[in-house]
Amino acid sequence: MKKIVTSGEILVEIMAEDIGQSFLTAGTLKGPFPSGAPAIFIGQAARIGQPAVLIGCVGADDFGALNIRRLEEWGVDVSAISIHPELPTGTAFVTYRSDASRHFIFNMKHSAAGGISFNDAARAAVDSADHFHVMGTSLFSPQATSVALKGIEIIKDKGGTVSFDPNIRREMLSLPGMKVSLDHVLALTDIFLPSGDELFLFCEERTEPEAVDALLRRGPSAVIVKRGASGATYFDRDRTVETPACVVDEIDPTGAGDCFSAAFVAMWLRGADPALALRIAAAAGALAVTRKGPMEGIRSMAEIEAFLDQQEASR
Amino acid sequence: MKKIVTSGEILVEIMAEDIGQSFLTAGTLKGPFPSGAPAIFIGQAARIGQPAVLIGCVGADDFGALNIRRLEEWGVDVSAISIHPELPTGTAFVTYRSDASRHFIFNMKHSAAGGISFNDAARAAVDSADHFHVMGTSLFSPQATSVALKGIEIIKDKGGTVSFDPNIRREMLSLPGMKVSLDHVLALTDIFLPSGDELFLFCEERTEPEAVDALLRRGPSAVIVKRGASGATYFDRDRTVETPACVVDEIDPTGAGDCFSAAFVAMWLRGADPALALRIAAAAGALAVTRKGPMEGIRSMAEIEAFLDQQEASR
Repeated sequence: MKKIVTSGEILVEIMAEDIGQSFLTAGTLKGPFPSGAPAIFIGQAARIGQPAVLIGCVGADDFGALNIRRLEEWGVDVSAISIHPELPTGTAFVTYRSDASRHFIFNMKHSAAGGISFNDAARAAVDSADHFHVMGTSLFSPQATSVALKGIEIIKDKGGTVSFDPNIRREMLSLPGMKVSLDHVLALTDIFLPSGDELFLFCEERTEPEAVDALLRRGPSAVIVKRGASGATYFDRDRTVETPACVVDEIDPTGAGDCFSAAFVAMWLRGADPALALRIAAAAGALAVTRKGPMEGIRSMAEIEAFLDQQEASR
Repeated sequence: MKKIVTSGEILVEIMAEDIGQSFLTAGTLKGPFPSGAPAIFIGQAARIGQPAVLIGCVGADDFGALNIRRLEEWGVDVSAISIHPELPTGTAFVTYRSDASRHFIFNMKHSAAGGISFNDAARAAVDSADHFHVMGTSLFSPQATSVALKGIEIIKDKGGTVSFDPNIRREMLSLPGMKVSLDHVLALTDIFLPSGDELFLFCEERTEPEAVDALLRRGPSAVIVKRGASGATYFDRDRTVETPACVVDEIDPTGAGDCFSAAFVAMWLRGADPALALRIAAAAGALAVTRKGPMEGIRSMAEIEAFLDQQEASR
């Protein structure tokens, strides 16, 4: 089995209990939940049986221990998670607005997450892996970006593959050096996994077919557009494959895109055909939203398959 | 009326709901509550009518806004609270163990609280004030310590007074330069306000009378030993004055010592005799523990006096 490596932020998430709850006043919160986009991704990849390792940094506190414990339980190789002696584990406070948008207060760049470095353990993690997954969110500082760039270069040099989920906000593109780094990542990417309009972040084209064509000429051999409750579409030079979304009651959308990407990449590394990879990915993404907490909805392969059987039976 | 200035950490506090609740697993939390020992102190001082200004730093986020709003509501001069463009407002997660001890996860030194500096606004705050209160917790970094040291030097140079609440953990004494800084603060202190065994942090003596004598020879003209539910004792070269604690149902002890100190210092600056200052301080400290949240139990002078009348009537 091919091994996946990713790098980036490991956080705890603290969630406001009520829709529209403000962080300007005290209220009921739920947490700490293990979180961080690359941690969610790697947790889902491991949970469906893919060898998986995460490069990251947490504080010497309960929040770091909570994350490491969860990832270990799910079979993630945690040997490249370093424990910073001074900086606290990163935090994300989130509240949902009544229009379903999210409002965050992050402590990421200046937390232990920002203490990530390409140390010996990171090097060993990349050496042990066949595939590097780049999370857009994880390019939050020059140091964090350099870890991902070193990782994908080593992986590509030895004939490995790269996937890229550009879950970044448009403002980030204007940070110094960011556009150049992202273009470099895209050129080395085999599988590009944008959500909705992120498809248009890296090209001038303004329609989906034109944007997909342009991206497939720039590096990726496949582009998968994630559309949440509207399903997903796989594009390569020869094929377009669609999948509908699975039907679930949404409790908490955080992590759905990360779980989708993890399941798709794992299936792709196993040589699954795109239709099957998309179905498994859509199921993983759907199950992710059925629990409160970014990683609480991560399910095993057996659970995903049982869920898909049930979805198909109810059609 | 004499104006009090203090400096240091402004935080939000997030509290575990249940006794014994762990931060290694998700649970119900309450918050964000405005917090930080110097913020609690200055809030109580302003709330009982003393002119008061706080030197500190928060992030450009809801948690910073929440603190500034609360302090402004209570009449604190917030002109020396700077807003850091990058660092998030500091946080303190707290859970109570079944033995009533507290377990914290802090983000302080590397948060906006650590961005404190003796800038023009801080200088203006000290210039406008007559008295500097030093919080031991606020000497958490060389930069934060230097703000307090500059402040007390300017205050003493112009004939002002200094109070010192050494609410520090014994481990802090071994930090480089800390012991020297603390001895320097103590030499410039007029009113020293230790809680319980903190009396012995700065001297070799091992009994209370000997320790008090030694401290009164080193700078302070008065030592007030805070004993929580066992009351408090005032010592100067001529007198010993005791006060019992007020009787309340304790909901949350955080902030009680800070409120006691604020009320005592304000009364002392007004020229109150020690017995009255102690009674008001004990009432402020007792009321502080009757609400969940470090600053939620802060009460006005009218409320404190009404509470004291009620306590005396029930004896």
